[in-house]
Amino acid sequence: MKKALVTGGAGFLGSHLCARLLDDGYEVTALDNLFTGTKENIYPLFENHRFSFVLHDVTQPYWGQFDEIYNLACPASPVHYQHNPVETLKSSVLGMMNMLDLALKTKAKLLHTSTSEIYGDPLVHPQVETYWGNVNSIGVRSCYDEGKRCAETLAADYRREYNVDVRMVRIFNTYGPNMHPKDGRVISNFIMQALANEDITLFGDGMQTRSFQYCTDLVRAMRRYMSLDRARIDAFFAGKKLGTPVINTGNPGEYTIRQLAEEVLRLIPESKSRLVFAPLPADDPKRRKPDITLAKELLGWEPEVPLAEGLARTIEYFKERSK
Amino acid sequence: MKKALVTGGAGFLGSHLCARLLDDGYEVTALDNLFTGTKENIYPLFENHRFSFVLHDVTQPYWGQFDEIYNLACPASPVHYQHNPVETLKSSVLGMMNMLDLALKTKAKLLHTSTSEIYGDPLVHPQVETYWGNVNSIGVRSCYDEGKRCAETLAADYRREYNVDVRMVRIFNTYGPNMHPKDGRVISNFIMQALANEDITLFGDGMQTRSFQYCTDLVRAMRRYMSLDRARIDAFFAGKKLGTPVINTGNPGEYTIRQLAEEVLRLIPESKSRLVFAPLPADDPKRRKPDITLAKELLGWEPEVPLAEGLARTIEYFKERSK
Repeated sequence: MKKALVTGGAGFLGSHLCARLLDDGYEVTALDNLFTGTKENIYPLFENHRFSFVLHDVTQPYWGQFDEIYNLACPASPVHYQHNPVETLKSSVLGMMNMLDLALKTKAKLLHTSTSEIYGDPLVHPQVETYWGNVNSIGVRSCYDEGKRCAETLAADYRREYNVDVRMVRIFNTYGPNMHPKDGRVISNFIMQALANEDITLFGDGMQTRSFQYCTDLVRAMRRYMSLDRARIDAFFAGKKLGTPVINTGNPGEYTIRQLAEEVLRLIPESKSRLVFAPLPADDPKRRKPDITLAKELLGWEPEVPLAEGLARTIEYFKERSK
Repeated sequence: MKKALVTGGAGFLGSHLCARLLDDGYEVTALDNLFTGTKENIYPLFENHRFSFVLHDVTQPYWGQFDEIYNLACPASPVHYQHNPVETLKSSVLGMMNMLDLALKTKAKLLHTSTSEIYGDPLVHPQVETYWGNVNSIGVRSCYDEGKRCAETLAADYRREYNVDVRMVRIFNTYGPNMHPKDGRVISNFIMQALANEDITLFGDGMQTRSFQYCTDLVRAMRRYMSLDRARIDAFFAGKKLGTPVINTGNPGEYTIRQLAEEVLRLIPESKSRLVFAPLPADDPKRRKPDITLAKELLGWEPEVPLAEGLARTIEYFKERSK
């Protein structure tokens, strides 16, 4: 039986990935320090005896024999990652070192989840993997952005120097059940506000755009990526300028924040919420949209869940939760 | 008596800084793992009983009571920092964490030396401190560039969160005696080649530009920066967009690589070297020149040593060395 380790396994994405790995027949160990992850997210998984949970902080070394490691641990929303910026950066950088060391010594495959935030406030649109990004190294978002960039560097260097089989995805905005209701991100904010009949806050003029990927689409991409032989991946990237196997995963459908708010209100017709406007936070990117050509070519993958459907499922989850 | 700690104290810049601190009456402790630094650089300092050397790697915690910490440790030339990219990144990131923790717990002032490399291959010219840079996160230079960016982030966050009195300089190309003769950088390369009557290799067409700061100019800026009251620094940066006290230090005089080679040959008239051309290495920046407005305003500082004079002193050093 194949064994998988998922850091951040009790988080939003980690819990979906653990569920999928169990479905696929894996023995699954979820590591989480429960700073943003919650045991609620993984309650249903405990019914499966192939599932284990370990309360552990990835800034500390962890040891075990696994075939596949999925490195997801890091607070990912500004309200969380700015709570303790130094710990946020450490979870990215030291967590990456610890997982790379584990992969190196046990010859495990490693999937590292990077982020569209490494592109910062992009000057290239849509973002291709060869784009270097536009990131502030000393701002209030830097603990996340630079921590994640530094983790990418470590992954690339462990691959080049020590031949670790590390693959990377850069995840664009993703949403779905198990999102933290108070993570301050736009989809959870809007749904929570609409359900509570509170005003829906748009930052800036609401015309900044985002792309929204439903969680199961992402998990499908991650599993397909890890199912590929290393030789296939090396051959695919040999002709690219990247030098390191990294692909964007996201939904290229582009919506303004205002359109999103209107869609949420359409799906919650009983809501009495209205749209209101507030100033844009520091360094908030104005546009972001993935170019997913590489993921299409390498994985034969593209997102399948339309926004209306994914939003409906997410709204359902938040309704259940608030009961 | 004031006590200073200098990490990388046996390196090129560290050795000049230690000498200057001794001249200024400090008790000086130089930390170095001697990977690129050498004890030769600090032989003369051992005559002063206020000087101590500790063989120590900054990736490991270090403890001591100091009034001022100068964090210089990190291999800084591609030939060295690419030797072991993971260790290079760790020396920046873990070294920074260790020095920030030390400064936090002992209430020491900390000067961190960042680098013009954080601007990468800049799209803004000359580089101002508010420019975010253009850096590849997964290339062969990333271990240095991203490690240094990540160190800046840590410094900014320790200042914001824990009120550590950290000041940063972004050092542009600096040269002088005690440079490593085989560091692969352009000035040491050219002088060594000219002295050995070997062909002088220009990468690309030789029209990429650099600015060259003489080492004592930089040390003077660092000392003046550390001599300022924190209140003065906070007041100065309060009106800036940076949020963190960081200033460029470099010589804004701009020379093409070809001009530099010709100047070296002019100063070594006995050399039989000729100019030859080789392909440009990956990610090599095409132009780099500091905007030093902030350093002028805050420190009342600007470089004083002209290129011809600094080169002559450096050539003298390399001639002595090779005897």
